[in-house]
Amino acid sequence: MLNFTYHNPVKIIFGGHTLRELRKLIPQNKKILLTYGGGSIKKNGVYDKITKILKNYQVIEFGGIESNPQYETLMKAVALAKKEAVDFLLPVGGGSVLDGTKFIAAATKFKGEDPWDIIAKKAPVEEAIPLGAVITLPATGSEMNGYAVISRASTEEKLAFGSPLCYPQFSILDPESTFSLPERQVSNGIVDSFVHVMEQYMTVREGAPLQDRQAEAILMTLIEEAGKVKINPDDYTVRANLMWCACQALNGLIGCGVPQDWATHMIGHELTALYGLDHGQTLAVVLPAVLKHQKENKLDKLCHYAEKVWGVQKGTDREKADIAIEKTKDFFEVLGMKTSLSAYGISSEKFETIASRFDERNMFLGEKQNIGRKEVMEILKLCL
Amino acid sequence: MLNFTYHNPVKIIFGGHTLRELRKLIPQNKKILLTYGGGSIKKNGVYDKITKILKNYQVIEFGGIESNPQYETLMKAVALAKKEAVDFLLPVGGGSVLDGTKFIAAATKFKGEDPWDIIAKKAPVEEAIPLGAVITLPATGSEMNGYAVISRASTEEKLAFGSPLCYPQFSILDPESTFSLPERQVSNGIVDSFVHVMEQYMTVREGAPLQDRQAEAILMTLIEEAGKVKINPDDYTVRANLMWCACQALNGLIGCGVPQDWATHMIGHELTALYGLDHGQTLAVVLPAVLKHQKENKLDKLCHYAEKVWGVQKGTDREKADIAIEKTKDFFEVLGMKTSLSAYGISSEKFETIASRFDERNMFLGEKQNIGRKEVMEILKLCL
Repeated sequence: MLNFTYHNPVKIIFGGHTLRELRKLIPQNKKILLTYGGGSIKKNGVYDKITKILKNYQVIEFGGIESNPQYETLMKAVALAKKEAVDFLLPVGGGSVLDGTKFIAAATKFKGEDPWDIIAKKAPVEEAIPLGAVITLPATGSEMNGYAVISRASTEEKLAFGSPLCYPQFSILDPESTFSLPERQVSNGIVDSFVHVMEQYMTVREGAPLQDRQAEAILMTLIEEAGKVKINPDDYTVRANLMWCACQALNGLIGCGVPQDWATHMIGHELTALYGLDHGQTLAVVLPAVLKHQKENKLDKLCHYAEKVWGVQKGTDREKADIAIEKTKDFFEVLGMKTSLSAYGISSEKFETIASRFDERNMFLGEKQNIGRKEVMEILKLCL
Repeated sequence: MLNFTYHNPVKIIFGGHTLRELRKLIPQNKKILLTYGGGSIKKNGVYDKITKILKNYQVIEFGGIESNPQYETLMKAVALAKKEAVDFLLPVGGGSVLDGTKFIAAATKFKGEDPWDIIAKKAPVEEAIPLGAVITLPATGSEMNGYAVISRASTEEKLAFGSPLCYPQFSILDPESTFSLPERQVSNGIVDSFVHVMEQYMTVREGAPLQDRQAEAILMTLIEEAGKVKINPDDYTVRANLMWCACQALNGLIGCGVPQDWATHMIGHELTALYGLDHGQTLAVVLPAVLKHQKENKLDKLCHYAEKVWGVQKGTDREKADIAIEKTKDFFEVLGMKTSLSAYGISSEKFETIASRFDERNMFLGEKQNIGRKEVMEILKLCL
């Protein structure tokens, strides 16, 4: 097991009818900036409930944060937060709203010249407006970590940053608020959660059987519950399990003391930035390609994954690995996800741009940092 | 899944050569009370390392905290902490030293007349001296929770208390510091961790498959690593896995949203208080008896446990449950633990005292609160 530090101070409030806790969680004297996305919280009733619960607070609003939250949009919120001198941020929605709000928190207090430096140059976050979240879409795990992924349309970039100051103080997770999600977002969320686990699990073995089993626990539960949610979208227990899986998939725990990959996410971010695919859509395409490309490096773990998660008992190690990759792909397909770029009508025209970006950033991907420009090109071709 | 709140702010620093982090973790201006037990940290070198690392700090010492830390002893430390006006506590050792120090933290700042009220009357902890721990014995999970169990010789009591103010700010877990543990303490620790999981898992099913699998992950890893540690006591990876299992077993995570039992612990505490058995020893005796007594109530989960943890595939549900209980007992026996009171030469003389105590406290045990005086007597007889 590798040495590690684990510290996750987020308070999770989980369950039905928990929104009312907001009054205990946010001090009465706070001036709140309530942030949200395209308005689904107005349709599903969450917005009305929250404004009622917070009727004795000073609340400013900023709506319209996109999926793949855009720097340009967020900077408008930063201007508003400064003008109104808000001292608490309350993102309500999915991971994009929360990620965007983490950036608002850091950028509003940023002392440097250009807040984009927080993302592009890893300028340190020395101060941030405190925030607490209400999550209505299980997917990114952002509710229990200090990370955010921000996009910038003008440069076609999608990049991550993180800071201990960007942990939400609390996150409220009410499974009932997910009943009304469109099927596409449910599937995207399941794939996102699944791939978050795979990035921390599908590497080389590192003598960490508990972490392996904890990862398999999430994968198996996601597979099981994904099958149920299509049939019974209003089943509270199913929605609760999916929501808790998404949260556990990226709160740092399963990554303790083990090598991590993240090649799928890094390549996927580029596909979103350059082709506009949903985050989950990119992952469903890229993960199988990365696994195929890295089969020899990951053979031992792929075989273990085949046995433990998919119940594959027969065949050579390589055959088991192949079956596991196919089963992963099938799982995505059954969820309604496409698993090739060609299925989206996308060809190789921008592959060179993507591969050269990793070159420019002098970035090597994968747990062995063995995926450079050439290998990214090979993986992208496997995505076609 | 039941509604829940999960909040665990402890920073875990895990791995070899991590003691030096103490200098970053404790502010330079703090006056530290270093607490420890019977002196094993002087034999295994941890004491020397820490005093060297903290040579620029003001450090007062208080040694001699017992296994099952005694109120009378701890009150001497409280007097010392007050006299010296210490403002940071650094327990170094196992769960007893840490539990005792949590009480010192709360009792030193207690405004009421009798600090025993914190334990016996659940008097609220409104202030506590901050603490950070160095753990050298994987067992209690105290390093990542806010609970403590304190004993009082004069009244033959052993009782728990907890407060968010008693979370360690940090816990350093260096598996190397466990190499020199006596076999009895290793076995006690494994049983303690195992039973912590069982108290949160072996109840009734509550539509929480992720938590079930996370619990099974710890149980299976404990079983696996327990077999290795006897053969290779100096294997770092084995020690690291046992240490991480113990921590995960009682940091609250697997108990999220599920019913909990704790009858084994409650009865076990009485056996320690009245007969002086080690904590782990009591659990190895009581758990099988509780499971036998509650077989019908827990049948579904016992059967699930038999299949998932022990690989039992054949037989009726009741047969599977019986096999699982036997396998649990065998596991404890192979660890060198006795699984009956008669094996310790203990007879039923104090059973009435124990059973009547739960009556006096008006306390019903088990996830269904269906274990009262009569049932405690029945369980104790099954322990013989």
